Amino acid sequence: MERLASYVSGAWVHGSGKAAVLVNPTTEEPIAEASTEGIDFAGALAHARDVGGPALRALSFAQRGELLLALSRAIHANRDALIEVAIQNGGNTRSDAKFDIDGASGTLAYYAELGKQLGDARFLVDGEGEKLGRSPRFFGFHVLVPRAGVAVHINAFNFPAWGLAEKAACALLAGMPVVSKPATSTALLAYRIARLFVEANILPAGAFSFIAGAPGDMLDHLGGQDVLAFTGSADTGARLRALPAVVHGSVRLNIEADSLNTAVLGPDVTSGSDTYRMFLREVSRDITQKAGQKCTAIRRILVPAAIEGEIKDELTSLLRDVKVGDPALEGVTVGPLATAAQLRDIRAGIQKLAAEASIVLGDGSFERVGAQDGKGYFVPPTLLHCKDPDAARDVHQHEVFGPCATIVPYDGSSARATDLVRRGGGMLVGSVYSDDRAFVTDMIFGLSPYHGRLYFGSEKIADQTPGPGTVLPQSVHGGPGRAGGGEELGGRRGLAFYSHRAAIQGARPILEAALDLKS
Amino acid sequence: MERLASYVSGAWVHGSGKAAVLVNPTTEEPIAEASTEGIDFAGALAHARDVGGPALRALSFAQRGELLLALSRAIHANRDALIEVAIQNGGNTRSDAKFDIDGASGTLAYYAELGKQLGDARFLVDGEGEKLGRSPRFFGFHVLVPRAGVAVHINAFNFPAWGLAEKAACALLAGMPVVSKPATSTALLAYRIARLFVEANILPAGAFSFIAGAPGDMLDHLGGQDVLAFTGSADTGARLRALPAVVHGSVRLNIEADSLNTAVLGPDVTSGSDTYRMFLREVSRDITQKAGQKCTAIRRILVPAAIEGEIKDELTSLLRDVKVGDPALEGVTVGPLATAAQLRDIRAGIQKLAAEASIVLGDGSFERVGAQDGKGYFVPPTLLHCKDPDAARDVHQHEVFGPCATIVPYDGSSARATDLVRRGGGMLVGSVYSDDRAFVTDMIFGLSPYHGRLYFGSEKIADQTPGPGTVLPQSVHGGPGRAGGGEELGGRRGLAFYSHRAAIQGARPILEAALDLKS
Repeated sequence: MERLASYVSGAWVHGSGKAAVLVNPTTEEPIAEASTEGIDFAGALAHARDVGGPALRALSFAQRGELLLALSRAIHANRDALIEVAIQNGGNTRSDAKFDIDGASGTLAYYAELGKQLGDARFLVDGEGEKLGRSPRFFGFHVLVPRAGVAVHINAFNFPAWGLAEKAACALLAGMPVVSKPATSTALLAYRIARLFVEANILPAGAFSFIAGAPGDMLDHLGGQDVLAFTGSADTGARLRALPAVVHGSVRLNIEADSLNTAVLGPDVTSGSDTYRMFLREVSRDITQKAGQKCTAIRRILVPAAIEGEIKDELTSLLRDVKVGDPALEGVTVGPLATAAQLRDIRAGIQKLAAEASIVLGDGSFERVGAQDGKGYFVPPTLLHCKDPDAARDVHQHEVFGPCATIVPYDGSSARATDLVRRGGGMLVGSVYSDDRAFVTDMIFGLSPYHGRLYFGSEKIADQTPGPGTVLPQSVHGGPGRAGGGEELGGRRGLAFYSHRAAIQGARPILEAALDLKS
Repeated sequence: MERLASYVSGAWVHGSGKAAVLVNPTTEEPIAEASTEGIDFAGALAHARDVGGPALRALSFAQRGELLLALSRAIHANRDALIEVAIQNGGNTRSDAKFDIDGASGTLAYYAELGKQLGDARFLVDGEGEKLGRSPRFFGFHVLVPRAGVAVHINAFNFPAWGLAEKAACALLAGMPVVSKPATSTALLAYRIARLFVEANILPAGAFSFIAGAPGDMLDHLGGQDVLAFTGSADTGARLRALPAVVHGSVRLNIEADSLNTAVLGPDVTSGSDTYRMFLREVSRDITQKAGQKCTAIRRILVPAAIEGEIKDELTSLLRDVKVGDPALEGVTVGPLATAAQLRDIRAGIQKLAAEASIVLGDGSFERVGAQDGKGYFVPPTLLHCKDPDAARDVHQHEVFGPCATIVPYDGSSARATDLVRRGGGMLVGSVYSDDRAFVTDMIFGLSPYHGRLYFGSEKIADQTPGPGTVLPQSVHGGPGRAGGGEELGGRRGLAFYSHRAAIQGARPILEAALDLKS
């Protein structure tokens, strides 16, 4: 069985001892194993900081952008092989695999272009300067400089390619070396990408390291110039927040966690309209794509009570004939969940929701196309209907990370919709489908403090968007409260986490010369 | 004895039970007491969120700015009475008291002016919009909206006025209600200011609350829309980071903690030059002002080894005749430390440093002008000299929060200076005195990742600056690593902590109408 290596301190190394086993979630067959036992994590972080950091900081944004473009191309040139890995270890359909892998290469390419735009600078001047005293000579600037530490990235199992790439793109462009640790269960795809990156010899020594397996004592060695970005469960996020190094060392932390994303159908939307069809299409896509294992997937579907029956029927008819099974097979739309643990959690979660909502679709037996008897972590598209959302708690607060969503009726008013949506306690993305400007305006102001991103579906863009579930590098990704309180991407905003802002005060001509500014 | 009240849920209330006692640090006489026992903190936060929040969010920036101007004026109109309180409870000299109180009114006035500039808007559009798809119709904006929670402020004992005002200015202008809790030991000044604020009836109901005494269980009631800003020790900061509400609730936290600020004298600066005199003046001011109880005060004095003896003599002669004693008396420059606990800590800290450095000035007995026999928490200006900074640890890492600093020689190279300064592990402010552009440039790039602010003293601005120890609202205040990893102030940047950024995606014309933008 293939044993995944980690790339630390400039060399591929294997951990000793008992290894974690990676399986094919369709067949449950073991396909690889990984261990990090015995790896010198303190040394690995020091190598990144001391070798990778200075090398990246010596480059301009344009040069760092060229590195990202080369990384993007390395992924794209190996797209077909990577898709096979995503099917095998991730349980992805071909379409799901492309979503992840093209998301990775696309985000790298986006930040490559941003690097080009930022040009020859090696750091950013933040805003205009300002006079500080009575005389114009005493003057202040702000700079955003690369933090002088290492960026540790802990990614979720659902997007091994995209997760790695979007975090690495921002860190490397900002000038910070990266140590990337994918979730072990689906690490094979990230491992193949890491191999590509290293073998293509694109990055300066120390700029990229890769951990296949448990993080060991790595996080105990983080310090005040380092950053830790995590995508995963709220429970793990809370454990990271309480790490001694984080609590005592002012390690900068970014957490993207659970999210009860909501789609709201506006009261103005009539059956059969473009906006109506857009809503149905995007809701059902979020239930089926990646078997619902997207942090941005719609979990609550708010619809005017007057048409809740109709929406229930429409979604049922869209989802009923979806094929669940071996994701390698043509025609299969929903592959297995990634792991046995996820299967247990999702089944338990659906039961939890079923105490507050009735199961409309997905209860009982279902066909598993091409799956071996009794094997594979399959869950069918599951639709619930919560008639009394005021009596419900888990519908608003318990994220079921699978092909599952709950219809929730509301009275068609923006006030009630706002109230219900907010019960999620902080979300990555909310979507509103409406062509009524007053309703849209209310929703922007009512919902924006509770969301990292709001997406407004409308007839004007009905066929032009990838839907609310797609993370675009132009827009920030993250969310307050339950969603972890983090922020990634958003164009240049994505560099801020990896940069340190410092005020620079002094005699204007001296500072301008040093910062190479013209007045 | 006066018993301080807390202002919560729109009423002044007294805690029951055993009270903490506030003393006059010059005489050690009790002057007031405070207790919060029995106060309904959950209700107090809910009142701020539910009553104060909506009221502030309904106002424009200009209107919020007008509130700040009125608060600033309320302080300024009562300046003389407040100065007396600062002398009595803070051990401030008249000059120290003005520094704190004028810092408070000045910062409020600065943010009042910023509010005026931001005008009629109630939230900020962040940056330019961006096309998100192939068609220009699918478009994205970012907004910065007031967080829908409460801003809890926990301030340090050294700046009861300024600390309250600078945090409140940013929160209120951003549109968040404030619960302000000063350090109990010197809370009398903050209490008087809170009384002025409430009695002048300036702010909407719920926008401002005040806690005199222990925070009780208040912090257990913080949630994902709330923020907590703290200035104080690194130990307390670490405790706040580990609070269950913070760990599990994604409460946004800003910490400003210990800081081993350094002044670096450049190798180009010749004896008797303007820059040389500026350096000596500002170093000695930071040792004496507020009895050294400034988080921004210089703790390490890096000087070229070639002139360390000369600098030692110059500083000794500047500090030797400084009068220590009753701060109410004319001619006294250094008052007492704020509390008995501080006196113990500072004495112990000086002994700690003395294991690595020799005491040049401040050892042995000293005169306490006008002080009663044996009373008062006095420490004389204390200058140490660390000949071997490579062998030292506490000189770089242990903050002695009193009138104390250590001379550290270096070889005059920017590389060595950078290395030594960085050993502080993250600072609020570093100062560099030099007219050599190459040296200044090296220091900017070598030091900025380790500092919230860098200040460059030069002959060009020798008489025009308040020195590195003064926090200006135009520049960010905070620092990475040991300094807590926080950021306050910095003009509009100071609003970011109290704002939530959300991406808004959708059809361009609909969003522009809702956000009231012109393309």
